[in-house]
Amino acid sequence: MPIFSPFNFNYKVMFKPEIYSARRQKLKELLSDGLVLLLGNTDVPMNYADNTYHFRQDSNFLYYFGLDFQGLAGLIDINRGNDMLFGDDVDIEDIIWMGPQVSLKENAAKVGCTQTAPFKELFNEITKAINAGRKIHFLPPYRAENKLLLHELLGIHPAKLNEYRSLDLVKAVIAQREVKEAGEIEEIKKACATGYNMHLAAMKMAHPGCWEQTIAGTMEGIAKAQGASASFPIILSQHGETLHNHSHSGYLEEGRLMLVDAGAESLSHYASDFTRTTPVGGKFTQQQREIYEIVLAANNYTTAHVKAGITYQSAHLKAAEVIAGGLKQLGLMKGDVQEAVKAGAHALFFPHGLGHMMGLDVHDMEDLGQIHVGYDEEIRPIDQFGTAYLRLGKRLKPGFVITNEPGIYFIPALIDKWKAEKINTDFIDFGKLEAYRNFGGIRLEDDLLVTESGCELLGERIPITPEEIDTSVNKK
Amino acid sequence: MPIFSPFNFNYKVMFKPEIYSARRQKLKELLSDGLVLLLGNTDVPMNYADNTYHFRQDSNFLYYFGLDFQGLAGLIDINRGNDMLFGDDVDIEDIIWMGPQVSLKENAAKVGCTQTAPFKELFNEITKAINAGRKIHFLPPYRAENKLLLHELLGIHPAKLNEYRSLDLVKAVIAQREVKEAGEIEEIKKACATGYNMHLAAMKMAHPGCWEQTIAGTMEGIAKAQGASASFPIILSQHGETLHNHSHSGYLEEGRLMLVDAGAESLSHYASDFTRTTPVGGKFTQQQREIYEIVLAANNYTTAHVKAGITYQSAHLKAAEVIAGGLKQLGLMKGDVQEAVKAGAHALFFPHGLGHMMGLDVHDMEDLGQIHVGYDEEIRPIDQFGTAYLRLGKRLKPGFVITNEPGIYFIPALIDKWKAEKINTDFIDFGKLEAYRNFGGIRLEDDLLVTESGCELLGERIPITPEEIDTSVNKK
Ligand SMILES: [Mn+2]
Ligand SMILES: [Mn+2]
Repeated sequence: MPIFSPFNFNYKVMFKPEIYSARRQKLKELLSDGLVLLLGNTDVPMNYADNTYHFRQDSNFLYYFGLDFQGLAGLIDINRGNDMLFGDDVDIEDIIWMGPQVSLKENAAKVGCTQTAPFKELFNEITKAINAGRKIHFLPPYRAENKLLLHELLGIHPAKLNEYRSLDLVKAVIAQREVKEAGEIEEIKKACATGYNMHLAAMKMAHPGCWEQTIAGTMEGIAKAQGASASFPIILSQHGETLHNHSHSGYLEEGRLMLVDAGAESLSHYASDFTRTTPVGGKFTQQQREIYEIVLAANNYTTAHVKAGITYQSAHLKAAEVIAGGLKQLGLMKGDVQEAVKAGAHALFFPHGLGHMMGLDVHDMEDLGQIHVGYDEEIRPIDQFGTAYLRLGKRLKPGFVITNEPGIYFIPALIDKWKAEKINTDFIDFGKLEAYRNFGGIRLEDDLLVTESGCELLGERIPITPEEIDTSVNKK
Repeated sequence: MPIFSPFNFNYKVMFKPEIYSARRQKLKELLSDGLVLLLGNTDVPMNYADNTYHFRQDSNFLYYFGLDFQGLAGLIDINRGNDMLFGDDVDIEDIIWMGPQVSLKENAAKVGCTQTAPFKELFNEITKAINAGRKIHFLPPYRAENKLLLHELLGIHPAKLNEYRSLDLVKAVIAQREVKEAGEIEEIKKACATGYNMHLAAMKMAHPGCWEQTIAGTMEGIAKAQGASASFPIILSQHGETLHNHSHSGYLEEGRLMLVDAGAESLSHYASDFTRTTPVGGKFTQQQREIYEIVLAANNYTTAHVKAGITYQSAHLKAAEVIAGGLKQLGLMKGDVQEAVKAGAHALFFPHGLGHMMGLDVHDMEDLGQIHVGYDEEIRPIDQFGTAYLRLGKRLKPGFVITNEPGIYFIPALIDKWKAEKINTDFIDFGKLEAYRNFGGIRLEDDLLVTESGCELLGERIPITPEEIDTSVNKK
């Protein structure tokens, strides 16, 4: 390429101006005073300044100010009620290279904002406010560029910024973003449709000899061709038991299970997140199928019982009981199922949480702090191995979008540790476990919209019964 | 996904340990004293800390230390002759989640480095060296994370780091990296093979009604499925005349030209970079074909004449003459061709450079400063509109890998400006130009290996004659 500029206006705004104005209005009502500073993201270099990763706007900025290009900041004045957008217009020389451009003022109008100013004015506005003794609410930064910028704007050391972020603002944003608007649900469904296509393509390629990366790359290509990108780095592995696994270097082998956890990001940057576990070649062994049916039962149980008013902590524990009950029938667990779950014995096999919120982020609002997103004064995290990793515990409301992702894994290092330390020996038959040592892992994940009376599966359900999977793998 | 860690070891090292040791040895010979500090890159968050972009190691770090995972730094002691790698091993708890791990010591051995230490030791080593009055050579940082780290390590303000970077080190690294080793050329050829497949897929999709993003996404999928990724954000547009254009929002239209500038990054992170311009549907109009043949002639002329010993500045000016000569035949330019190029009149149509170095970066070593990569004491940049953008001007050596990418564009804003300001009216027929106002742009780019006697086209040549393109577009 001859010339490259990281600047790239995307003029399309997902929702009507009134939607963004209303969201900012609501935020003003949730806070008592001060100024809310929302920083957009900037382009990030891969290997030199002008060769950047695909641009990803900050989700909070997108929610309140909708503009999907870099170099912007928003300021919401709680007391005076006005909103300002800061950013720079391109100059006339640039238009030769970039073609006709839309001004910041015109773009701001698309999100219902009438006040705009050059980016450097942000420094004056913040300084003025600080000198007047006004509170500046800001969210915890996660990008190094924005840490440097906040440091410059506010004089707070980059390492101390999280400490000084506004908890009031964090809570207000969560209160708004956790309940999805109708328009947001439509966008999530688009991400689900792309996620469906990604998983179907993976199943079709699940034959012995295929390079894992060929499948993962093809899935990413579908995500890019149909939306913005994948919503997170694709997990695709025949070692599903290795939960922190982002390698795609293996070749598919007969007799193994391919675990694929992947979702899409829509053009408007809403996420989907699905997991399927496919036997290479399409046919489960008897041993695999028995474990698979337990995970599927836990997934189905959750979908059948989730509704507004229950806590997701209770749903997690119920899913754990389904898993423990199934493993008891196979002889891998023993004793009373409810006692076993109370003791945390299921976590040898199901050592993670049942799910998380999903929206503009695949782990929605994780930048704001998982404890504030997933828990509240009523429901506190349970500090027990396994359940401690549950990201979402609190009481569900209509409009929550959540994931349902139970799993069963056979993790050699964890089995050895528990056996050596005699952990939960009343509930686990370590002898019988030996035959499962090289099993791998199974996870099944769907996305749910919580309603008053139950929940709705988002998107067409990706093939999930052993028969459906076999058909998808062996479709010509 | 239930749990996510940005940590992801990639155990594969591209070359033998001796290669890396030899590169570091050579660097020691090129510098007289002090310590060379090479920082690896870290993972970068997309929308929250744990949801990261695909990891891209720093190219200089890759060249000298080869390890392709985050959280590393290398220190080369010029005086004592030893090399150290700093990084942290995972602890035993992590192994439960990540599976068996390889220690830093074992990984370091793969790149011929025997001394390793925890990352925090880097602070001690640097402090010790500073206190002993030793020079710390470092390269200009481009990632905000590394600016913060260098600020902490060296006490230099982030905005001042470029000023204090070691020019001696910059020049030494360029002297090494600009001449490609045989193994590197093999890797570049792999990137070229993937680039070929990307462009062939694009041509096959170049039919009216196709969404540009579908094509660009499919190309990225191929890059990911066959290698590491695309080597830079894909340019795919029916507005080739807009040189800073990264939008893929249009739909292909009969009668327009699709310009695609895209390359692949191999698994070892070597780049390819190709441009083809395809008429939607496969068939050029007479007007398009006449301009296309001129660009093709300029491209072919360059490949036929490039060899070690000539300057790329002279090749650029020769290509400009081929373009001016062709445009004169069409009546768009007039007067003496060499005089026209001397006056810079060709730059109305060809306002960028003929090419750049390519290697571990698509614009190789651009992080070190284009002026040092592309020019030297002998050949200085020419400060004239158009040629001023030439990234590589200096005398070519055997082993240089460069791009050859002439183009002709009809940029309405630039035509209007020149016409209004009466620029180069002796050489341009602005009246005849009117019929080309909505033409768009054409660029044709190949990758060349410079040899003693000429040059070698890298990779199988992507279809480039009008006939080959038609065949590729309309292949069933
Ligand atoms: Mn190029
Ligand atoms: Mn998930």
